[in-house]
Amino acid sequence: MKPGSERKLVRALKGEAVSPPPFWFMRQAGRYLPEYREIRQTATSFLDFCYTPDLAVEVTLQPLRRLQADAAIMFSDILVIPDALGQQVAFREGEGPVLEPVRDAEALAKLDMGRLHDHLAPVYEILTRLRREIPDETALIGFAGAPWTIAIYMVEGRGGTECGRARTWAYQDPDGFGKLIDLLVQSISSYLIRQVEAGAEVLQLFDSWAGVLSETQFRRWIIEPNRQIVERVKAVHPEIPIIGFPRNAGALYRDFVEQTGVDGVSLDHTVPLNWAKEQLQPLCTVQGNLDNHILLAGGQALEESVEILLKTFSDGPFVFNLGHGILPSTPPENVERVAELIRGWTT
Amino acid sequence: MKPGSERKLVRALKGEAVSPPPFWFMRQAGRYLPEYREIRQTATSFLDFCYTPDLAVEVTLQPLRRLQADAAIMFSDILVIPDALGQQVAFREGEGPVLEPVRDAEALAKLDMGRLHDHLAPVYEILTRLRREIPDETALIGFAGAPWTIAIYMVEGRGGTECGRARTWAYQDPDGFGKLIDLLVQSISSYLIRQVEAGAEVLQLFDSWAGVLSETQFRRWIIEPNRQIVERVKAVHPEIPIIGFPRNAGALYRDFVEQTGVDGVSLDHTVPLNWAKEQLQPLCTVQGNLDNHILLAGGQALEESVEILLKTFSDGPFVFNLGHGILPSTPPENVERVAELIRGWTT
Repeated sequence: MKPGSERKLVRALKGEAVSPPPFWFMRQAGRYLPEYREIRQTATSFLDFCYTPDLAVEVTLQPLRRLQADAAIMFSDILVIPDALGQQVAFREGEGPVLEPVRDAEALAKLDMGRLHDHLAPVYEILTRLRREIPDETALIGFAGAPWTIAIYMVEGRGGTECGRARTWAYQDPDGFGKLIDLLVQSISSYLIRQVEAGAEVLQLFDSWAGVLSETQFRRWIIEPNRQIVERVKAVHPEIPIIGFPRNAGALYRDFVEQTGVDGVSLDHTVPLNWAKEQLQPLCTVQGNLDNHILLAGGQALEESVEILLKTFSDGPFVFNLGHGILPSTPPENVERVAELIRGWTT
Repeated sequence: MKPGSERKLVRALKGEAVSPPPFWFMRQAGRYLPEYREIRQTATSFLDFCYTPDLAVEVTLQPLRRLQADAAIMFSDILVIPDALGQQVAFREGEGPVLEPVRDAEALAKLDMGRLHDHLAPVYEILTRLRREIPDETALIGFAGAPWTIAIYMVEGRGGTECGRARTWAYQDPDGFGKLIDLLVQSISSYLIRQVEAGAEVLQLFDSWAGVLSETQFRRWIIEPNRQIVERVKAVHPEIPIIGFPRNAGALYRDFVEQTGVDGVSLDHTVPLNWAKEQLQPLCTVQGNLDNHILLAGGQALEESVEILLKTFSDGPFVFNLGHGILPSTPPENVERVAELIRGWTT
């Protein structure tokens, strides 16, 4: 790459309409790839897998070889944060993550930020090695879960729920619950700052469970903590683009964008395209939002959906992506076909 | 009631700003009430419970005595439709409904509309008896699940999923999946028409799983089938108010309201209030959208939330309700307190 020039993803996140638009896919490294499943067997636990640089670097590189994506996202998991804070986290086959729940001040007091960076040192090493190994024109993305979403797992002990315990705790004892969120704001900000120092050029904050909250709770537990993290990271690294992802935020995506200071917003697959074009793209770069189920299904409907997305967003700042991660049963050739369609796009 | 005058709920659904607004709560008859739990024990299966007029009428009446709600909603379940079509449906303790899945043309061909009304005769009897037994000023609501939501249960075999099989079927074979939706449009329309003839004065269509779909799929499997049902029911009973509930539709609530012809729209708890006031209330009556978790939590935060809702919507056509059903662990006194606050409201 020429000195002084910037990678396509970074240009798009700084507001440029890049044509064809940069693309990457959530969970582009993952179980849908046979080469991933093969290497996954070599580690005993999923967290060990995430903390072993040789393995995590290799699986991050795998999809780049197939797709020539414009970004690599470090292979990791959002639950490294509770793990690093001392909460017990296990990934069980076919069941997803299971945590020893934190539901009161006593359990909260046992969490300890002191070991955070020691514990997460392998993640920083993964980023540093990736920046050396990925193609020069490929951007490197670091990420973290956002506080509410991590808190859901920490409080419920698992994902995929109605988040009832966390929602009830937040209503009945907002100060107590707020201490957990504050701890997470501090830990996540510090973690992301270190990721940048290790080589990340773009950051994404995943707030996957943002969509379960009422408006007042969304403002308090989604917008405000994301805003604080953006502010803290930008205070140290003002140039770093940050993508927010308040999944299923509905009409509240707009307030999220206006109030958090993110450079880009990742849209889930339910967001209507013209609404996003009118309400969000004038405010920041939009990323998304192909349905991961149409990527799985393939065929003519997939090609048409890709084209509609490109037509809708390509004349403004846009990053092509999915609305959520690639599903394990997705045929890799469907993903390759989408990559090909994007690369061949001309307005 | 004076001859010629209309019940508060009906007036609100015809566009009148009624003060204080009419109210009812989704699942106002249910497990949070000790008197419900007591009577529930007398039936062996949940579907038997729904089909036994003595029991279903009594549990419908229970919350009216405590709350003096402006509407009674017949006690039933949306899965009586697949049951009446001949699909095997069971409710297992602590697990929810389990159905023998319908996933292809062969299974679909076995479903039979011929027995629909015979099978559902107890529901019609429940409505007729309720209209005689509820207070004169109380409106009687009939309901059905909307096609997509019932199809989810029919295809997945259970609720609470990402709806992956149904979404994939809909993408890969829209004509085949469309046959299931068409069968449901016919069955549900016919069922609702009979409900009106049995005594229902207002109808609600529950599309609880509307929020999992992308925009194009939402238009095809939510808006269009709901529109067809409204059209069919209104062709026979043009005066009957119909409330739509495309739960978690986000920014697409507006297109749903504009295109289906519903008289009212029920809003889930995530819909921002001022957005709904500006975008939806000018188009139809809004119903909702107190968070069922704040109803469970109670206290000062609950009182404030009720007041904010009343302040936001009471100067237009509005029905006070929750964003989803009352949770089983909700203290009945919290529900009674909300009823009291609404009845005492003056602008």
